[in-house]
Amino acid sequence: MPATIEWKCGGECELRLLDQTLLPQRVEVRVCTSAEEVWEAIRCLCVRGAPAIGVAAAFGLCLGTKSARGASTGEFLRKIQEVGEYLCSSRPTAVNLSWAVNRAMAAVRKEAGDESERLWQILSAEACAIAREDVETCRQIGENGAHLIRDRAGVLTHCNAGALATAGSGTALALMYEAKQRGVSFSVFADETRPLLQGARLTALELSAAGIDVTVLCDNMAASLMAAGRVQLVVVGADRIAANGDVANKIGTYGAAVAARYHGIPFYVAAPLSTFDLSIADGAGIPIEQRAEDEIRVGRHGRSVPDSASCYNPAFDVTPAELITGIVCELGVLEPVTAENIRKIFAARG
Amino acid sequence: MPATIEWKCGGECELRLLDQTLLPQRVEVRVCTSAEEVWEAIRCLCVRGAPAIGVAAAFGLCLGTKSARGASTGEFLRKIQEVGEYLCSSRPTAVNLSWAVNRAMAAVRKEAGDESERLWQILSAEACAIAREDVETCRQIGENGAHLIRDRAGVLTHCNAGALATAGSGTALALMYEAKQRGVSFSVFADETRPLLQGARLTALELSAAGIDVTVLCDNMAASLMAAGRVQLVVVGADRIAANGDVANKIGTYGAAVAARYHGIPFYVAAPLSTFDLSIADGAGIPIEQRAEDEIRVGRHGRSVPDSASCYNPAFDVTPAELITGIVCELGVLEPVTAENIRKIFAARG
Repeated sequence: MPATIEWKCGGECELRLLDQTLLPQRVEVRVCTSAEEVWEAIRCLCVRGAPAIGVAAAFGLCLGTKSARGASTGEFLRKIQEVGEYLCSSRPTAVNLSWAVNRAMAAVRKEAGDESERLWQILSAEACAIAREDVETCRQIGENGAHLIRDRAGVLTHCNAGALATAGSGTALALMYEAKQRGVSFSVFADETRPLLQGARLTALELSAAGIDVTVLCDNMAASLMAAGRVQLVVVGADRIAANGDVANKIGTYGAAVAARYHGIPFYVAAPLSTFDLSIADGAGIPIEQRAEDEIRVGRHGRSVPDSASCYNPAFDVTPAELITGIVCELGVLEPVTAENIRKIFAARG
Repeated sequence: MPATIEWKCGGECELRLLDQTLLPQRVEVRVCTSAEEVWEAIRCLCVRGAPAIGVAAAFGLCLGTKSARGASTGEFLRKIQEVGEYLCSSRPTAVNLSWAVNRAMAAVRKEAGDESERLWQILSAEACAIAREDVETCRQIGENGAHLIRDRAGVLTHCNAGALATAGSGTALALMYEAKQRGVSFSVFADETRPLLQGARLTALELSAAGIDVTVLCDNMAASLMAAGRVQLVVVGADRIAANGDVANKIGTYGAAVAARYHGIPFYVAAPLSTFDLSIADGAGIPIEQRAEDEIRVGRHGRSVPDSASCYNPAFDVTPAELITGIVCELGVLEPVTAENIRKIFAARG
């Protein structure tokens, strides 16, 4: 399987993205050579998952400013601002997107006295650093959270928070890869995750390829699986975490959290610090992307809803901190999930 | 739109079933002239919904015993027993199936002194009575429960418990049709109901045809819709209700009930008394049909789950009585749902 994201930059530069809209049937790489192509690849979910779209956007910024390498420093800085804002407009909810773009732009601004060719080199070095650090962050998340998966546990996950959602081994799924490494024997239940079936298509694909026992279920089956005592842990990723610990993640996460609470099952979120947005007090402030009705009405393969009915299609929901047992990040497990504990972990990082 | 079930019996007899596997794209009627064809139509969900499969099975009994009309009374009674058992084997969960078959057989046995031709006439009269009474039962359920739908309410339902699931106007949806008649203004949210999309395909079709505002959502979106304050009532049908009020219904019902409880939203079940199975103490004793993995893996239109992953596909789940606010039946609203109240309502009926 090709890498989720690969940056090739010799004479020409290109961003190679594994096209996740075609998996598991077809394995194709989409090659982007412009910011517009990266914007479109993020928009259409060719690349998806909060950390992965952050990494892709940072490289998109490199592609979009390449032509300004001969321009004046002022022009280059204006260009990078313009392309950065444009890339951030591709999807609204995952904060890693603007986090990565802002980080890359900040690295450039620090050296704003340099000429544009040099600024572009700084930019592409920073994009590569973001990608490299994501690999390490995923590894740390896996190490920090793997102990949550006990021997013979059933682990429920929703959507895909794995290698396909990051530049590394994933967030929620990093725990599973690490637990498997440690010789823990467990089973994963993957919500298929309507309407776009990232659980069925992507999580099932990458876990089974890694030799982890995985069973796909329809989202509506999770609660009765919990009632039957077959789920001991729920772990999911995140697209944006507010200052109080409220978590925006793939639509359906909230329902899984409510069901987990009802059954007394621990519910963990795994996410890097780059997914936190301390500028937003709580989940009510997180913008939720509304997607096209046809994703439900027609789906990937054929029409099901008659034209005479409407469809409701938010891409994300917000799970309040009070339903979350803990958040696994690269610095450890944040538990309980409170604004104070979140402030502390950011203060500790410095 | 043709009727869900139509019995034509002049010289030749035939059962005409609206093929619900093809809706909403194609409107086709499947004509059955043998018990085998009815068995297959029930098995493949051409006809589905607990009351509807009861009615269909009663007519299937007529078709399957037609050839024994010239036989001895003893042979006819053996034949009806054999065909009845066979029809009951088509699907295990909805008790209306065996209820209707047993009722039709009992009507025949009461007159077991008659000759077989006469017994078959009794049988077909009883099947027609079951169908006719179902129409009246649906009407009464609608009348008894319509007041639960308040003006400007959002009403969530799961699967299809409407005209397409009965010989009449439905169970859960009968409340909506009656509320609409009474001039109540409300909106329905229809869970699409994976894997077979009965909510998206059937509930959306029949409600919009009746001029009722209906919006389809993926099953995993219901909890966040509740959190947003847009759902004031949940009402669903039932496939079997145990003596203590535990309800088996389409997979996903339980999760909706858990979410409704968490949000303090009333959760009602609408079902005829024929859906109660007083021989079963509680939900643990209700047989749950497990269906083919390919309903999830391949779905109606195309493959999503890689072959390397398993699929979990129970057709039903059990919602414990404690999560159910009330059960609307033809005699009124049973509330609270307790074994004692259930006994009382059956005692009152005599």
